[in-house]
Amino acid sequence: MTADLIKRIFEPHFSNPILLTGNDFAELIIKKGRIVVSTDSHIVQPLFFPGGDIGKLAVCGTVNDVAMSGAVPKYLTAGFIIEEGFEIQNLEEIAESMQAAAKEAGVDIVAGDTKVIEKGKGDGVFINTTGVGVLEEDFHIGGENARPGDAVIISGTVGEHGMAVLSARGDLGLESQIQSDVAPLNGLIRQLLHVCPDVHVLRDPTRGGLATTLNEIACQSDVCIQIQEKNVPVLPAVRTACEMLGFDPLYVANEGKVIIILPETQVEKALKVLHEHPYGKKAQRIGGVKESPKGRVLLHTALGTNRILETLSGEMLPRIC
Amino acid sequence: MTADLIKRIFEPHFSNPILLTGNDFAELIIKKGRIVVSTDSHIVQPLFFPGGDIGKLAVCGTVNDVAMSGAVPKYLTAGFIIEEGFEIQNLEEIAESMQAAAKEAGVDIVAGDTKVIEKGKGDGVFINTTGVGVLEEDFHIGGENARPGDAVIISGTVGEHGMAVLSARGDLGLESQIQSDVAPLNGLIRQLLHVCPDVHVLRDPTRGGLATTLNEIACQSDVCIQIQEKNVPVLPAVRTACEMLGFDPLYVANEGKVIIILPETQVEKALKVLHEHPYGKKAQRIGGVKESPKGRVLLHTALGTNRILETLSGEMLPRIC
Repeated sequence: MTADLIKRIFEPHFSNPILLTGNDFAELIIKKGRIVVSTDSHIVQPLFFPGGDIGKLAVCGTVNDVAMSGAVPKYLTAGFIIEEGFEIQNLEEIAESMQAAAKEAGVDIVAGDTKVIEKGKGDGVFINTTGVGVLEEDFHIGGENARPGDAVIISGTVGEHGMAVLSARGDLGLESQIQSDVAPLNGLIRQLLHVCPDVHVLRDPTRGGLATTLNEIACQSDVCIQIQEKNVPVLPAVRTACEMLGFDPLYVANEGKVIIILPETQVEKALKVLHEHPYGKKAQRIGGVKESPKGRVLLHTALGTNRILETLSGEMLPRIC
Repeated sequence: MTADLIKRIFEPHFSNPILLTGNDFAELIIKKGRIVVSTDSHIVQPLFFPGGDIGKLAVCGTVNDVAMSGAVPKYLTAGFIIEEGFEIQNLEEIAESMQAAAKEAGVDIVAGDTKVIEKGKGDGVFINTTGVGVLEEDFHIGGENARPGDAVIISGTVGEHGMAVLSARGDLGLESQIQSDVAPLNGLIRQLLHVCPDVHVLRDPTRGGLATTLNEIACQSDVCIQIQEKNVPVLPAVRTACEMLGFDPLYVANEGKVIIILPETQVEKALKVLHEHPYGKKAQRIGGVKESPKGRVLLHTALGTNRILETLSGEMLPRIC
């Protein structure tokens, strides 16, 4: 519905070639160089969850969106909308966690803004972050660049963020040790691009999970993406929780994973460098790109059957980021 | 209280030289050039008011913050937090008005994000905008640069935005024809800087009005700013509404005005170019900068007395932008 909203309401009004590329970042051509910006508002509920909080999420989410362009994230802005009566101590904890994440990612928070709204007109705190990065190399990375013959890699296990947030809401109805995977991926991506500069697509499977993000890419590139279910890494705890609740981990949000699409010949090199990084230890080749059926994602299931992986319609887990 | 919050909570955590300059913009030193970013979240209530709406405000507010650095605003990002059940037609109207303002300002909205929250957890729509501008010239403009001997100019009448929003809330208890002054000032500023490149300070007197903004500048520059009350232009309708409600127009928010501080010798040239521009027709020299008392703003009243103009404490008019 959000996609529909954007298509119907915002695109016709804001229409310009940069916005319409359909990526999560905007590449800005400045007279003497190329910079990249990306923006994201964060409304996750609850604000604190196993493995992170809204602050860490706000920094990592935007750092990752900028990094997906191949740019080096450098600067962040942060805009806070705070509900009257919100605990200062919580705000402090959130700010600390933002700074820790910014430090790890090597970015500075260079501009900020704070607005306060009456009690009952907000929900604790909402945080917008906007990131600016610099593109020094001549990469050609984007959702529109997947080509038949390419391989598809995922940098690690899927579904942790969504299930961690759900468990923090008490919605699982069970004790869970699942931690969110929220992490800045710019370091991992930098090392990957150093070894494999001709990566075609980088995208983080956040809202809607792996399945929805692969569908976006299949549409943008006008290709078919085929995935082997058995090769998609899922933690046992996530698999169990998903089974009990009737969720499919392929549709659950991630905040520290990246989909990498690149020429088949580069898979071995890529996996080697990914496996050496703390955030890429469980990276796997999960499938490949074919000519047709165009715009489709096909899943070869563990049972040996094939089925179409549709885009998630509606929002399975609201306020997950 | 917001200033206190920023000082206590955010500055210690995000501390870096760029953030700590205390201006509304961040100047980013990128290897091959200088760009400027600024961010602002908008929570104005009601969303539509005489002379504008939250969309026009969100674009102009950030365009103006970037322009106050001397940079040319080029790109905006926009992040929307929308309450479930919000009328699509209203959103459309807001988007239209954003695009119209962006067009007038000559900027493109290059990245966006939309989040939806449950009914009762938000208030219609909140909009964050982040602006990116390019600084091509070697200006030295900033709140810290006011010098004894400088003159202080205001680009037009003060207090319209705050009173227009109040009247839209029905809080005036009277029929009012006051229109918000919300407007993109980058064109006006560009023409000014073309003629007077050695402007010392540019700042838009938004929340807290002219008096509060002058206090910020007096503190940052460690000087005294002296203002002649009779020279500050105020529309009769604003003056009447303020008198009836016990407000001082010097403390009421503006969204289309700029304070200009520059060497006394340049006043005539500056006023000439301002008066030629639609947004500067009523520009006036309203005072000057002295050595001491440092950090103070003195008002020479229409009655011939002198008094200290304090910073607004608390927020006289909440949710005005």
